[in-house]
Amino acid sequence: MRASARRPYPMSSSQSATVNRRIVLARRPTGEPTPEDFRLETEAVPTPGPGQVLLRTVYLSLDPYMRGRMSDAKSYATPVALGGVMVGGTVSRVVASHHPEYPVGDWVLSQAGWQDYSLSDGTGLLSLGAAPERPSYALGVLGMPGYTCYMGLLDIGQPQPGETVVVAAATGAVGSVVAQVARLKGCRVVGIAGGADKCRYAVEELGMDACVDHRGPDLAGALADVVPKGIDVYFENVGGKVFEAVLPLLNPRARVPVCGLISGYNATGTPDGPDRLPQLMRTVLTQRIRMQGFIIMLDYPDQYGAFRRDMAGWIEQGHVKYREDVVEGLQAAPQGLIGLLRGENAGKRIVRVGTDDGSA
Amino acid sequence: MRASARRPYPMSSSQSATVNRRIVLARRPTGEPTPEDFRLETEAVPTPGPGQVLLRTVYLSLDPYMRGRMSDAKSYATPVALGGVMVGGTVSRVVASHHPEYPVGDWVLSQAGWQDYSLSDGTGLLSLGAAPERPSYALGVLGMPGYTCYMGLLDIGQPQPGETVVVAAATGAVGSVVAQVARLKGCRVVGIAGGADKCRYAVEELGMDACVDHRGPDLAGALADVVPKGIDVYFENVGGKVFEAVLPLLNPRARVPVCGLISGYNATGTPDGPDRLPQLMRTVLTQRIRMQGFIIMLDYPDQYGAFRRDMAGWIEQGHVKYREDVVEGLQAAPQGLIGLLRGENAGKRIVRVGTDDGSA
Repeated sequence: MRASARRPYPMSSSQSATVNRRIVLARRPTGEPTPEDFRLETEAVPTPGPGQVLLRTVYLSLDPYMRGRMSDAKSYATPVALGGVMVGGTVSRVVASHHPEYPVGDWVLSQAGWQDYSLSDGTGLLSLGAAPERPSYALGVLGMPGYTCYMGLLDIGQPQPGETVVVAAATGAVGSVVAQVARLKGCRVVGIAGGADKCRYAVEELGMDACVDHRGPDLAGALADVVPKGIDVYFENVGGKVFEAVLPLLNPRARVPVCGLISGYNATGTPDGPDRLPQLMRTVLTQRIRMQGFIIMLDYPDQYGAFRRDMAGWIEQGHVKYREDVVEGLQAAPQGLIGLLRGENAGKRIVRVGTDDGSA
Repeated sequence: MRASARRPYPMSSSQSATVNRRIVLARRPTGEPTPEDFRLETEAVPTPGPGQVLLRTVYLSLDPYMRGRMSDAKSYATPVALGGVMVGGTVSRVVASHHPEYPVGDWVLSQAGWQDYSLSDGTGLLSLGAAPERPSYALGVLGMPGYTCYMGLLDIGQPQPGETVVVAAATGAVGSVVAQVARLKGCRVVGIAGGADKCRYAVEELGMDACVDHRGPDLAGALADVVPKGIDVYFENVGGKVFEAVLPLLNPRARVPVCGLISGYNATGTPDGPDRLPQLMRTVLTQRIRMQGFIIMLDYPDQYGAFRRDMAGWIEQGHVKYREDVVEGLQAAPQGLIGLLRGENAGKRIVRVGTDDGSA
């Protein structure tokens, strides 16, 4: 979907110098979120106090984890309050500053959420300098999603040359990077994606050895055909029927980093049987599987520098290709997230909220 | 059960110098094994050829994994053939020898299976010397089950002082040792066992901080009451309803070594729903759980020496107590295994097949 999709917010799509638009959580979704779960509000642009900066959002990241924050189920993170601004990583520009480290005009990575303007005392900001080459990359391949790929694959997955790595959502923000890093490490890489176009892109552009369309009639059989030596690493960011197809193909001592389960994020209640938990546990035991969940910023607080150096180098050298799927305008963010959860995105989905322009 | 239980084999219960009794797999069980799944056969005691030794079985180990070998489902190990001798670890004496390393009269740990006599060329034998203090311990606390506890808890579980460790089948061959080693490492240890007697033994004799009877009316509630700070390590050797009670109590970054799933070994087919696999995966993700299956002799071929030194020292110093549940006579082995799978044993179950006597 693009900005041309139906638009529940009859608002200007461009930023104002005086009005802050913000999208808040109107109600907690049941199942798939709908536009009515969000509400667009406006207020005056706030004024920075002593030690504070005023940030204007240029890019907003859309990520699957946001679905979890809309619910109040037990999780590692606090849910968004009803009426609270939706959370999200942003790339922003400093438009007023009372903070020596963040002069006006600088770019920063922040957690400003789904709004045009925000205040910060510097906590949690990461400076991108005055003229970053591709500022939006800090929301993807050079940011949290890229770091997730890097640590999850290398630290938990421990891929060895010649091993077979399977990656789901293979053309998405995470899957596409995991696949390319696994190739760099000398692995055979098989992607799973939704549709022939995505599969073609995975093989022809991202260099995967094979890609299986999970919309095809026989996912389990098609996957088995392209992993003749079984699966040594399965990078889990999807769950559901893809995991079901992978499970019987896992080799002894396979590793399964678990960073997401997007196929279940809209689930309501516990699905019908049969109960597949005993089968999973039997596989873990008899194949001696290591399965490990991780939340990148909690589990790896201190290796960001090494990641940034490596990943920037790989992009520079052409080893890692990266594609963005840009949704135009803050008002399109709700539909953008809904579509992301359906797998409609082609690459890393971000929202262009405002212009690159250095002035407010 | 003891040798007094019903006996499908109207045979002498003592060893002969000329006849080898052996128990073979008569048919593959459906669900719980029955005595009719086994058959007792006799043959002449074999004669050792050049380089061979003749072994007489003194003790036979009964272990849950044996149920798996009776089936021909995919596993890490080859199933017992129909008509083949049931597999099993034994402590045996050398009664005839053409092998310089194993003189007549020596004790050895071997894989002779469910029979009185066997031949060996030395492959896979471990010498216990001429006069071991407690030869049967080599089948339990100082053998494969003890090694399983040691590596599973210490290497995969990584228990830290002050953490809470939960152990199921807490008075069994593995659970009882895991619990005591965890106590040695400064952990709070909670056992789960079947019945008040076992629970009392777990607390009073084995030193656990608490023990929950899984036959009680509210396992989940009772367990929650005794782990006020949640669970950091769950040593999984049971599965089923115990795992279900543990899952919601796992702390962030908890570790789950998976060494057995005895509650499901007699299962036929896939159980009814609801499907709890998605719930497990969500817990793995949001709590960042590390779950790892292992098969001790495959995954840790080379740390047996360190284990033997440590464990022998702990027994010597009284830190690890060990109880055996001795079934009398080879003919009682089938019922002994059936009862073990029901949790009828009190401690490590072994079969006394023959006398300690040094002669054949």
